[in-house]
Amino acid sequence: MATADLATAAAAPSPTLAAPIRVGIVGATGYVGGELIRLLAAHPGVELVGLTGRDRRGDPVGDVHPHLATTDLALESELVDDVDAVFLALPHGTAAQRVPELLAHGISIIDQGPDFRLRDASDYPRWYGFEHPHPELLGRAVYGLPELHRAEHIAAAAARAAGTPALIGSPGCYPTATVLALAPLARAGLIEDVVVDAKSGVSGAGREAKAEMLYAEVNESVRAYGVFSHRHTAEMEQELDLDGLDFLPHLIPMTRGILAACHIRPTRPLSQAELDELYAAAYADEPFVTVVDAPPATGHVLGSNHARVFVRADARTGRVLAIGVIDNLVKGAAGQGVQAFNLVFGLDETAGLSALPLAP
Amino acid sequence: MATADLATAAAAPSPTLAAPIRVGIVGATGYVGGELIRLLAAHPGVELVGLTGRDRRGDPVGDVHPHLATTDLALESELVDDVDAVFLALPHGTAAQRVPELLAHGISIIDQGPDFRLRDASDYPRWYGFEHPHPELLGRAVYGLPELHRAEHIAAAAARAAGTPALIGSPGCYPTATVLALAPLARAGLIEDVVVDAKSGVSGAGREAKAEMLYAEVNESVRAYGVFSHRHTAEMEQELDLDGLDFLPHLIPMTRGILAACHIRPTRPLSQAELDELYAAAYADEPFVTVVDAPPATGHVLGSNHARVFVRADARTGRVLAIGVIDNLVKGAAGQGVQAFNLVFGLDETAGLSALPLAP
Amino acid sequence: MATADLATAAAAPSPTLAAPIRVGIVGATGYVGGELIRLLAAHPGVELVGLTGRDRRGDPVGDVHPHLATTDLALESELVDDVDAVFLALPHGTAAQRVPELLAHGISIIDQGPDFRLRDASDYPRWYGFEHPHPELLGRAVYGLPELHRAEHIAAAAARAAGTPALIGSPGCYPTATVLALAPLARAGLIEDVVVDAKSGVSGAGREAKAEMLYAEVNESVRAYGVFSHRHTAEMEQELDLDGLDFLPHLIPMTRGILAACHIRPTRPLSQAELDELYAAAYADEPFVTVVDAPPATGHVLGSNHARVFVRADARTGRVLAIGVIDNLVKGAAGQGVQAFNLVFGLDETAGLSALPLAP
Amino acid sequence: MATADLATAAAAPSPTLAAPIRVGIVGATGYVGGELIRLLAAHPGVELVGLTGRDRRGDPVGDVHPHLATTDLALESELVDDVDAVFLALPHGTAAQRVPELLAHGISIIDQGPDFRLRDASDYPRWYGFEHPHPELLGRAVYGLPELHRAEHIAAAAARAAGTPALIGSPGCYPTATVLALAPLARAGLIEDVVVDAKSGVSGAGREAKAEMLYAEVNESVRAYGVFSHRHTAEMEQELDLDGLDFLPHLIPMTRGILAACHIRPTRPLSQAELDELYAAAYADEPFVTVVDAPPATGHVLGSNHARVFVRADARTGRVLAIGVIDNLVKGAAGQGVQAFNLVFGLDETAGLSALPLAP
Repeated sequence: MATADLATAAAAPSPTLAAPIRVGIVGATGYVGGELIRLLAAHPGVELVGLTGRDRRGDPVGDVHPHLATTDLALESELVDDVDAVFLALPHGTAAQRVPELLAHGISIIDQGPDFRLRDASDYPRWYGFEHPHPELLGRAVYGLPELHRAEHIAAAAARAAGTPALIGSPGCYPTATVLALAPLARAGLIEDVVVDAKSGVSGAGREAKAEMLYAEVNESVRAYGVFSHRHTAEMEQELDLDGLDFLPHLIPMTRGILAACHIRPTRPLSQAELDELYAAAYADEPFVTVVDAPPATGHVLGSNHARVFVRADARTGRVLAIGVIDNLVKGAAGQGVQAFNLVFGLDETAGLSALPLAP
Repeated sequence: MATADLATAAAAPSPTLAAPIRVGIVGATGYVGGELIRLLAAHPGVELVGLTGRDRRGDPVGDVHPHLATTDLALESELVDDVDAVFLALPHGTAAQRVPELLAHGISIIDQGPDFRLRDASDYPRWYGFEHPHPELLGRAVYGLPELHRAEHIAAAAARAAGTPALIGSPGCYPTATVLALAPLARAGLIEDVVVDAKSGVSGAGREAKAEMLYAEVNESVRAYGVFSHRHTAEMEQELDLDGLDFLPHLIPMTRGILAACHIRPTRPLSQAELDELYAAAYADEPFVTVVDAPPATGHVLGSNHARVFVRADARTGRVLAIGVIDNLVKGAAGQGVQAFNLVFGLDETAGLSALPLAP
Repeated sequence: MATADLATAAAAPSPTLAAPIRVGIVGATGYVGGELIRLLAAHPGVELVGLTGRDRRGDPVGDVHPHLATTDLALESELVDDVDAVFLALPHGTAAQRVPELLAHGISIIDQGPDFRLRDASDYPRWYGFEHPHPELLGRAVYGLPELHRAEHIAAAAARAAGTPALIGSPGCYPTATVLALAPLARAGLIEDVVVDAKSGVSGAGREAKAEMLYAEVNESVRAYGVFSHRHTAEMEQELDLDGLDFLPHLIPMTRGILAACHIRPTRPLSQAELDELYAAAYADEPFVTVVDAPPATGHVLGSNHARVFVRADARTGRVLAIGVIDNLVKGAAGQGVQAFNLVFGLDETAGLSALPLAP
Repeated sequence: MATADLATAAAAPSPTLAAPIRVGIVGATGYVGGELIRLLAAHPGVELVGLTGRDRRGDPVGDVHPHLATTDLALESELVDDVDAVFLALPHGTAAQRVPELLAHGISIIDQGPDFRLRDASDYPRWYGFEHPHPELLGRAVYGLPELHRAEHIAAAAARAAGTPALIGSPGCYPTATVLALAPLARAGLIEDVVVDAKSGVSGAGREAKAEMLYAEVNESVRAYGVFSHRHTAEMEQELDLDGLDFLPHLIPMTRGILAACHIRPTRPLSQAELDELYAAAYADEPFVTVVDAPPATGHVLGSNHARVFVRADARTGRVLAIGVIDNLVKGAAGQGVQAFNLVFGLDETAGLSALPLAP
């Protein structure tokens, strides 16, 4: 089958596969790992064949993720061999070491960590504090935001079918909300200056026991953190093609959800009509991005792979506000990974991701 | 088709129906209404053909339930005629007045309110403060808890197929958690005395603007309410065949979830082994009830139709503790209604209800 | 006693007054009203002699504010005559109508609403939608932020002692957090451009029953509101002497607390040392403002009249971040009112405000 | 001065002491330690002269308790010598080892842990898993609940003045709420059987980093714990003189507050009038206990040393419900300790504890 045919095949997904795709998860004990299990266990085209967690040997998944006890899955210390794809949910720097061997076995990778998100290898020591062990893979990796890089996903699908496993660097949670909110303006070169002020639920901080993340510390309080130094800054600057981004994240007392408020000084005056047109053009056909005309709440997308984007021009000040909201564990992590996986394996982009948000 | 055949048909669900079942929702603007839309819009055997809300005329569902905006459904003031089933999410006393006409049109009813839950008509003036306008229907209605009344659901399915529309009185949220926790003991006549102390998230109080339900009033506080007078008491006494139940509900600062802690003085000493056997026998084949051996949290079932039940004997005191947890809007309301609907329409009991719980 | 003497008297507070100051509260049933009662009932120099609420006639305060039941105070529909000062906690536009008569009776006013905060009468129709009925009073009113206007408070104290009652327009909650964070830079003319992105607990929205403020709507969600139109913008522009401020408030799931993150493009490069010096100079002697060197959380000031301010220069981008946090009901409302009241009545500025924050 | 005189002196507190009482806190870094600092730093009769925490050497208190930064206190690894009283906030088993030496130095002890609460030494191995190293001190210790043991506190005050330092075992949080709710009935011998179902905020679990206490684990969920085995059971049985108490605690998503719902089968029928009289007689003169006639919320006492008690008879079932609510860190821990301290040092019982609750 020629590449062109494959691209067509990818574009026209085959919902009823002869055999399910065999998928493993490395690092299944954290919050992103649990969310991957939740999504993939119910995915119509997937068979979950290996969940790994450090020092686990046959532990029922319900011991670690009580809400998933009914899946009757178990955790092992080692990955089984014959998998088609692996999702990695590992600390930064760890995935980069394991990926070459997995690729060599023909296994496609969806890395939920940052190790394959950045194109410039020098960003790793600068923002993450480690030298990337395999900078040669950075050019090959696809930044797993289909809304901006769908063609690359489809090309990776074609290559995969031709024998080259895919490598996806799944975006960070803050960049997903921010880039979706700003991309139409950024691509049109309309951003003179932007301040990104983001608010996140605490599940993004992971499941490790830290005193500062205790309920009693987080509840009824809000604080900024990572002042001028949050690692996701590099990723946003890369995807928006901006320098010196002013990004400030906050922790707020909720579990899930990110809201990125982007305060823009445009390069020229913009009308609301122009903004509406720009955003409609960008997202009208996107299955997971909805442009809304009232300020969106993170509660509108809870538990789903949906993103909502809002944009407003202020006649009084000449400024523009763009807001993006997502569930940080779904569109900001596991769901986004599944979306990219679907494309790379020629499935419907929405397979396993059709759940509506949960409210109230 | 003979009744016997139909019962078989109901027991052996047909997942791929020729035509979807046409379903309406009356009272679609509240929390239970929203949850019914969420579940039924994704139900594989259902076409949602009518959502009604007072004074609504073509309003997009997203105006009322922003999280459901992507469904592109709309709300109307009147129900369309040609529906097979209607879910009613109405204030108590209202459904009882509308049901006869709907039944007369051959429409099956799943009433999410209390109007068809109680068998003894005198319980309505006593606990709800209204005379039931159609006591003759109470004997015909099925108490919509399949775990205790599955045979009646299947009989109703047969009758429906033979031309008699079904009438389901879907259980209250507290009774669902409590009855599931206690039924094995109650049916075995082992309860000498029981105190039911329940804790609920505030979504059970509905969506009407009440000052006492403001975030600032509910947050960081817990209180009991409905002392000795909660209406659900009647329903629990009926289903457990108990008199003088001591039931106390509390509001706690969360949105969804009910935990019912049932403190039992048994009629005779009970061992843990005996309890385990009793509960395993009751629930081993139930798709939505899991007996667990650690105290369950409501967070383990959030957003799902699952219930978890826990039971423990205390050698020191001779007492028994049984705990039930559910999501009050799913297994305690909309999901339970869909489960009964599935049975009555001969579908797989779990159709549209397969979502795993959402955590963290 | 001459004015000069009085000014001295005001500067040297007399902690043990011969007779307590008789104080009334108009609008005592809301959240700010409750907070005023909490503070003033324990104030060493005050006798609370009149709490009024619409349609109240002798109702125990505990009926409205259960947490204050032990004060044994009651609510009346009308203010008693012989009071020295009145705190007004009323909807905007209402206080402006009542104030002239109160002043005419020699009663000093601390208005917790916006009616006497703005100097330019045209700001009222523009931002609040009403024509100010007494623009002649705007010049006389003192903007009740002692950290910026202490001299005016002391002058008002002198005038009051000489027979002219004081009129305080107590600042809004967002302006308090924002102005304290930005004032040192603004007064030095160092702000080229600033984006103020603020996060508030929901108690600021008041106690009126609104569906959008129900617990189930607010919990586990964050949203922006008042996009480009929040009324407090006018007040911030006035106090900071800025035009076209880009201000965006958010509601987050907590009851109390405001965090204002101020993203500044300075007029010239600023070092951290210069910022530290500037802020130390501004606040070193302030009893209620602490400059901190780690990002402050609203939880650090909960229940207290304290504010915390944080400022950082970013060498990478040349930008400056300033953050202010307060408890919106104390330093952002009732406590701030009491602080101004103390000054105007020649008391120690911290009288009745010495409680430490409550954590966790 | 004779003992009799001293008792009189203790009963007639001297609000203006010549010299403040010198107080130390051992274990000042946890939540109870922080709360002790908050209360004692503002206590009119106390000078805080020593705060200790493991491995601390001059650390500003604000490093550990940011909300207390303005106190300008510091933490040390060792207690200073010349203190009059020490509050111990230590893990169980630790205080018992340190107390004898402190007593030998004439230092009075308020132990916030369980080591001196139980009278029967065999309860320690049974409920806490350690042999008490100094059972001879158990008879001397006063159970620090003044509402039940005020005479013993006053006797201890007399003894202290005569040279024998006091030893207070400050009650646990659950026992405080439960015993206050039940004591009038228990003392009158009217309890045939009682189920205590309690709900607590998570601050009671302390400040140690535990994954199960992370915000994302606790939020939007409720669970029971310590089933049939919670250590506070022994203390409740002791103070209520009951055997085989059925006690079940729950963790709910809030930081502070305990509500104990006590479901009572009385020994004989009880009227509401009789209950009202019984409770009024017990608590009418208590400064910190209010009997209320609507179900109390924990939010009504937040941040204060107040307790609220509610009692109701159910004519339908013949049962009685008693509810107690407290702030677990104040009346359930630090505040209660200060209350006992006040009595033992002859101060007004309410000194330093007059703050009204904080709401909303």
